[in-house]
Order: sequence, then structure tokens, then C-alpha cells
Amino acid sequence: MSAPGPRIDLNADLGEGFGVWRLGDDDALLGVVSSANVACGFHAGDPLTMRRVCAAAVASTVSIGAQVAYRDLAGFGRRFLDVAPAELTADVLYQLAALDGIARTAGGRVSYVKPHGALYNAVVHHERQAQAVVDAVAAYDPHLAVLGLPGSVLLRFAAGAGLRTVAEGFADRGYTPEGALVPRSAAGAVVHDPAEVAERAVRMAADGVVLAVDGTRVAVDVESVCVHGDTPGAVDLARSVRASLESAGLTVAAFAG
Amino acid sequence: MSAPGPRIDLNADLGEGFGVWRLGDDDALLGVVSSANVACGFHAGDPLTMRRVCAAAVASTVSIGAQVAYRDLAGFGRRFLDVAPAELTADVLYQLAALDGIARTAGGRVSYVKPHGALYNAVVHHERQAQAVVDAVAAYDPHLAVLGLPGSVLLRFAAGAGLRTVAEGFADRGYTPEGALVPRSAAGAVVHDPAEVAERAVRMAADGVVLAVDGTRVAVDVESVCVHGDTPGAVDLARSVRASLESAGLTVAAFAG
Amino acid sequence: MSAPGPRIDLNADLGEGFGVWRLGDDDALLGVVSSANVACGFHAGDPLTMRRVCAAAVASTVSIGAQVAYRDLAGFGRRFLDVAPAELTADVLYQLAALDGIARTAGGRVSYVKPHGALYNAVVHHERQAQAVVDAVAAYDPHLAVLGLPGSVLLRFAAGAGLRTVAEGFADRGYTPEGALVPRSAAGAVVHDPAEVAERAVRMAADGVVLAVDGTRVAVDVESVCVHGDTPGAVDLARSVRASLESAGLTVAAFAG
Amino acid sequence: MSAPGPRIDLNADLGEGFGVWRLGDDDALLGVVSSANVACGFHAGDPLTMRRVCAAAVASTVSIGAQVAYRDLAGFGRRFLDVAPAELTADVLYQLAALDGIARTAGGRVSYVKPHGALYNAVVHHERQAQAVVDAVAAYDPHLAVLGLPGSVLLRFAAGAGLRTVAEGFADRGYTPEGALVPRSAAGAVVHDPAEVAERAVRMAADGVVLAVDGTRVAVDVESVCVHGDTPGAVDLARSVRASLESAGLTVAAFAG
Repeated sequence: MSAPGPRIDLNADLGEGFGVWRLGDDDALLGVVSSANVACGFHAGDPLTMRRVCAAAVASTVSIGAQVAYRDLAGFGRRFLDVAPAELTADVLYQLAALDGIARTAGGRVSYVKPHGALYNAVVHHERQAQAVVDAVAAYDPHLAVLGLPGSVLLRFAAGAGLRTVAEGFADRGYTPEGALVPRSAAGAVVHDPAEVAERAVRMAADGVVLAVDGTRVAVDVESVCVHGDTPGAVDLARSVRASLESAGLTVAAFAG
Repeated sequence: MSAPGPRIDLNADLGEGFGVWRLGDDDALLGVVSSANVACGFHAGDPLTMRRVCAAAVASTVSIGAQVAYRDLAGFGRRFLDVAPAELTADVLYQLAALDGIARTAGGRVSYVKPHGALYNAVVHHERQAQAVVDAVAAYDPHLAVLGLPGSVLLRFAAGAGLRTVAEGFADRGYTPEGALVPRSAAGAVVHDPAEVAERAVRMAADGVVLAVDGTRVAVDVESVCVHGDTPGAVDLARSVRASLESAGLTVAAFAG
Repeated sequence: MSAPGPRIDLNADLGEGFGVWRLGDDDALLGVVSSANVACGFHAGDPLTMRRVCAAAVASTVSIGAQVAYRDLAGFGRRFLDVAPAELTADVLYQLAALDGIARTAGGRVSYVKPHGALYNAVVHHERQAQAVVDAVAAYDPHLAVLGLPGSVLLRFAAGAGLRTVAEGFADRGYTPEGALVPRSAAGAVVHDPAEVAERAVRMAADGVVLAVDGTRVAVDVESVCVHGDTPGAVDLARSVRASLESAGLTVAAFAG
Repeated sequence: MSAPGPRIDLNADLGEGFGVWRLGDDDALLGVVSSANVACGFHAGDPLTMRRVCAAAVASTVSIGAQVAYRDLAGFGRRFLDVAPAELTADVLYQLAALDGIARTAGGRVSYVKPHGALYNAVVHHERQAQAVVDAVAAYDPHLAVLGLPGSVLLRFAAGAGLRTVAEGFADRGYTPEGALVPRSAAGAVVHDPAEVAERAVRMAADGVVLAVDGTRVAVDVESVCVHGDTPGAVDLARSVRASLESAGLTVAAFAG
């Protein structure tokens, strides 16, 4: 019997419905990922959905993360909001605590925090908002991890605060030669071919390398790969990413827990 | 040196602003009460206000309670909402966990739960909603107390679930001979004379008795007296209630902690 | 060439998404119905969706109605809210005016009002809320029609205020011998067989009759039949209802406009 | 009897409460200003408050403007939100139409639009958002005026779209030699002395001139002066501004209507 291969985490957004509305197939994704970024009510996610997703995640031994966001249901948290740091810290703390309390009643707990949408993009560069997020996490529980983009201000500040940081890669997104994501408005932003996406995931996870849009090899040191699940096709793609990772000898497992 | 007198708790609603809006004088009330029912964001209370109130309550050694409510900012939680039990349990859990997490970052914790407004009134009689609230509290932390109206279904179910129950009285409200509150629409619903309010508080706290609107003496077994603080005059009234209680030899102290 | 048959309106709920979330297939429904009950932002419906639905309705020459609701996004307006009459009047007026203004920029206008969900059910009996809705409609434009359940307090009060009233039937719902809808919790509440639904629609529209759950014939005098569209199967069902009505010689056309 | 002096409009924000919360003294302000910027529900203002303010404005023959804002109750519309133009146009249209409909039931109508808070500041420079606001106004009613900062992109685009533009000045704010407002974070941002504020209002209104922070005279061509009313002192200041304007021979009157 061979030794287990290197580990890689697969994370996806879950619980992003609100009230009567649904988005994505939470149950299907829980069979694929090792970490669930659960919406906490500010961009999506109502308390009952949070309970259900936490219970299902615990039952599937999937790690639970707090997917914190700007307070913007109408915009799904995808619009930059120039919120003051003290308010952002309080907003993140509120979301994180609410989800963690709910997770605990389901026999689990929140083990990491991942900003969502426009906040995710902002804290790549926005120092005051990045620090505000870090402050919330550190104040709540210094043993929590922070999941984000490699090289982001968020991860740098989180490390500075003594928090565990986890860098993630996107197998279906184009990269610049500098290792940044190609903006969605530019050519090559999204990789559509499922086989190519799966192969890129394996290269990232196994070799720490991704092919940039200009063909150069770029180092991407990631502990987690993000997959999407808000369309049926996306779930199939996530499944094929996982299958490819396992075929390549990797062990898909949560970085936390 | 004499022995300390019997204890009575004084509770009031705090943190009931939202964003730019303020309601009541939180700082003044923290100098008067022993327990603060802190709004949790569903009828009032934003995360930054919650942080500030929790920090101030800890600094004043005032006990923190979760003032949980229907999700109704526009109606301040004062309108009955026919929410299904599973949703209500999740809504209460969300609010309670959010406040408790915030309180803990301030060095405190939530020690009790008190429903607000229309939910408070509903759970006097509404069995499914009362049970839903109790379910949330018991699931989150069975050591929490539940604060409510003596004789209410809420307190009965809370006791049945093994939770500590705390009954409260209202010194400025009229009582029926049966010990219920006179409806606000009826004559005698509110006692306006400050001296009379203070005297009624003392009678409740010291003797367990209140004079009903028909002049009969009614037993009210309460561990806490609720005062209001959303007008300047109300804060003065609360102060005079406290002073009268102390003059009568009672010790004003939180029932919890 | 024969004379056109009697007219019947087909109405359905549209625009019930919010932000990123979608519900039902608005475009498909606009090819089936003659009247669109457009959500106005309180239970569902964001301003951009409202603009798009109004533009599409105008392009399809489908009549636009304001689907007014309690302010309850989290509950999709399906939970009774004990809102005071003056507030309800203002809430309805706000929704109605917002949609009408948007419709006018698309070259259309609101021609009727239909309460949604729990408000729809409440105003069957709840006199103060029914009057509050009527007050809003009459204040905004006394030429608007009110669409509702035959025999409801809403339609009675609307008629009393001089508003045009339009009674609707539900081809897929069971009726009691008294002509009321069978409660959803009871047996026979929903008719599932598509052929039976279509036939019931024809009987209602052509003959003013529906077969009650006990087999008796009940008179239902309706000018409109409500169909649902929030599932793909529902759209097909709506199409078959329309086809059956037309095969039976009826003209599907909006009651208004 | 002398001829009436030159006209100047006085505008202030009104109706900026929400539900149980109040902000400013609407009734007092209606006795001072000639134009009321009424909140429309996105940053403040609930439908019932809108009805009341519109009725009071009509009774006081004060002109009604739509104070449109980002959808951000928690931030009172004071935080920049990177909303896409099509959404912003729809959001403005929704607010404008809702208020206008409500105003009409009170016997009035909306005669102008003024962006609020962070949106006001954004459209000084942000071309896409400025155009989005203009598109909404022009689509709703090309006879409406747009009230804003002289030299702003908003007023330039509004004029380009054929809308009437009204420039306003701030008597209590410091100006740069270039005629811009001194940022609130800089020295001289706010003029505190009531006599000086009143005098500056007169100079603006009568002479079209304001003294900049460096003492230079700057031309400010304004048809309206903005006063604030969210504190008791502010109302007194507004009264003294009005009195000074009238003493100087100016006629305080709405630019619209």
C-alpha cells in the first residue's frame, strides 16, 4: 500500500440562497469539496439555510468557513463598498460569530474565514479593509485560518497578526505572467475546457505551477483550489477536478481540521 | 455592618439604534441598570453599535442579554410576524450567536435571552413560537437564562427545557387583578407618576406584590424589574427607581453573573 | 368568420427574482399570460428586474399589474405581518408608484393591483388591511382595477370605493362546496393532473363553474385565471391551459387595457 | 413699495428617519426652507414618513425634491457603492417614482432630484454614475430639475440631456480658491460661527461670491443654498440664514414651481 499523496484542499461557496431563492446545488457540492465557504447573511444566506448547510457539512465531514461579505443583498456583495474599517471589523465579526454559533449547534465549528466577492477583490490591495478583516478574525479566534489570494495584502496582514494563512488557486481562471488573475473583462480570463481546467488544477496542486496566458510557467503556491457550483455544469466540472486530482495521486482534504 | 438586602435585577433595552440613528441614551442607562438587553440587528442594532454597547457594558459590569426579535427593521420588531418555528429558531440562534461572539471579543458574554416587542408579546401565549425561541437558546447554550413575563408560555417551556427562567415586572405598567398587564389600549395601562412608579418597583421587588387597577393586591414574583430608557425623562425615572430600591434596602444586581 | 368568443384573462406572477437570484421564467410566461403581476421590491423584485419585466411586458402587449406585498424579503411575503393600516397604505402606495413610474418609462403603465402571498390571504378576511390596500389604490389612481379572490373583503371594499374589481380563479386548486379554496394543508388542495387543470380552467372561464372536492358544482364568476410559473413544468402547464381555453373558443385577453 | 429682490432657494434634507427612528426636525425645517430634499427609502425614509413629509411640504408650499441615494440603510448612503450604471439608473428611477407617486396623492409632485451623500460626492466626478442618474431623471420626466454642485459632472451631463440644472452653495462649508469644497478632513472645512455662515449665505446669494480659505474671492453662481437640520442648533442656524437673506433684500423662494 502506497503512502498517501500530497494534500490539496478543494473549496467552494455554499449556502448562497436567501429565503425562497436558491443558488447552486449545496448538496452536490458537499460531495465534492473538502471546505465549504458558507454565506453568512450579508450578501446571501439566511439563518435557516446556514443551519442546514452546517448540518450537512458536518455530516459530510466538510470543513466550514465563514464567507464574509459587504452588507449588500441586492448586489450579492459584488460591488465595492467604501465601508470604514471599524464598521467592517464589526460587520465581519457579526457574520463570523453568527455562523460559528450556528455551526456549533450542528456539532461543527468555523475553522476559517474567506472574504466574498467585491470584498475579496478589495482586500487584495486595500490595506485598511484588509486590516479590518484581519482584526475581526484575530479578535474572534486567533486559531482561525484566513483563505485568500496568494500575494494579497489580506494574507500578508493575516500572517502579520499571527493567523494561519491559506493561499488558493483558480483552475478555471487565466493568470498573468506575474501570477495575478486576468481581469474578467480581458481575453483569457476564463478557461472553459473541462479537461484543461482539471489539468490546471492538478498542475497547481501537484507542481505549484500554472500556465499563464502568454504560455509562461508561473509558480502558484496554493494549499487550496477554488471550484464553483452555481450551475449544474459547474458541479460536474468540480467533480472532474476532484477526480483528476485523486487520479494524480493527490489527497483531497481540508487544510483545517 | 448590616447584611446585604435581597437582590433585584434592573433591566433595560440598549443598543437600539441603527447606523446613523440613535434611540435612547445607552451610556446613561449603563449607569442605572444591572442587565442590558442588547439589540442584535433584526429589529435594531448594527454590529458596530453592538460592539460599543458590549464594551461599555463590560466596563460597567452590567450583564449582557440578547434582545432577540423578528426580522423587521422597518417596524422595529413591534409587528407580529407569522414566522415558522424552524425559521424563528434559526433567526434567534443567529442573533444570539452574533451578539455572544461580539460580547466575547469585549471580554464579556451573553448570559440571558429576552425576546423583544411583538415577539415578546407573542410568546406569552403562542406555543409554537415560544418553543422555537426555547429551542434556539437550549441549542446554543443550556446555561443561558430566559427573561420574560411571569406565567408566560415562554418561561414555562424554558423551564421544561431545563433553562433557568427569570420573571420580570413592569413598575410603570398597570396590572389586572389576574396579574396580567393592562393592554396599552385600555385605561390604566401606564403609570405616569414617577413617585408611584418607584414605589411600585419597591413593592414588587421587596414584597412581591403590585396593586392592580381595581385596587386589589396581586402577587408578582419577579427577579427583575424592567425600566425604559428611550427618552431623557425615562432615564431619570429609571434612576429614581434604582434609588428607591436601594433606599428600601434592596441590592440592585444582575440575576446572572 | 365567427365572432370572437368570450374573453378570459390569464395572470401570473413575474419579476420575482432579487438581485442575483431568479425565480420562474419571466420570458416564457410573457408568451402565455395576458396580465403580469410584477413584484415591486418588498417581497421580491429589484428595480432593474422591474425595468426589464416592464419592457418585456410592453413588447409582448401583456398588461402590467402591481403585485404588492408585505415588506419581507426574507420570507418572500408569505408570512402574515400585523402592519398598521396607515403603514400598509403607505407601503402599498410606495410599491405601486415605483412600479408605475418604471412601467411608464417603458411605454406602459400599471393597470391593476394584486396583493401577494400572505397579504393576499389576509385581505380575504382582514378588514383593516383590506381597507388599507384599497385606500392606497384609490389614492393613487381610482381608475386602477383590483384583482383578488371572489367574495373577499378586498374586492368588496374595492367596489365600495368605486374601483373596478376583477375576480380570479385557480384552475389547479381544489375548491370547497362553498367556493373557497381548500387549505393547502388539506387533502385535495392541489390538482396535479395537467389535463384536469386545463379542463377546470375551461369550465371556470366558459361556464363559471368548478367541481368542488366533494363533486358538487360550484359557481365561480371569474374574469381571470391565475397560473403559476416558478417551475419549468408550471410554464408548460400554463401553456396547456391557454391552449385549452383557446380551443374551447375563448379569447385570452387582459381585462385591463 | 419696492420691487421684490432677487430670488434664492433654500434647500434642506427632510424625511431622513426610518421606522421608529427620527433624524432632524422636519416640521421646523418646513418653516424655513423653500425646497425639501425628501429621502426615498434607500438611505433613509420609510413610505409613511414620505407621505407625512409630502403632505406637510404641500401644506407649507415647500417644493419637493427626490433625495435619491445608494441602497444602503446601514450606512445612511454615506459610503461609496460601486453600482453598475444600469442598476443605478433603475434604483434612482424606483426612488423617484415612489416619491412622486406619494407626493401626488398629497396634492404635490416631485419637481427636482438631488443625489444624497456618497452618491452626491461621486457624481461630482464619476461619469458613469452621473450619467446613470441623469438617465433616470430624463426617462422619468424631462421637466424635472437636477440640483447639485456647480461644476459637477452631474450638472454638466444633466444640461447635456436637456434637463434644467440648479447649482447650490454651502454657506457653512469652506471653499478652495478653485471653488471646490474643502475636504472635511482638512482645516477650514466647516464654518462654525453663525453670523459668518449667515453672511456667507448672503454674499453667495446676492453677489455670487464666497471667501475662500486663503482669503481670495471666488465666484459661486448658485440658485440655491443648502442648509442642514439634523441638530436643533442647525435649525436655528437655518433660520438665521433665512432671516439674513431676507434682511438683505433677497426673496427666499423655490427655484421650481
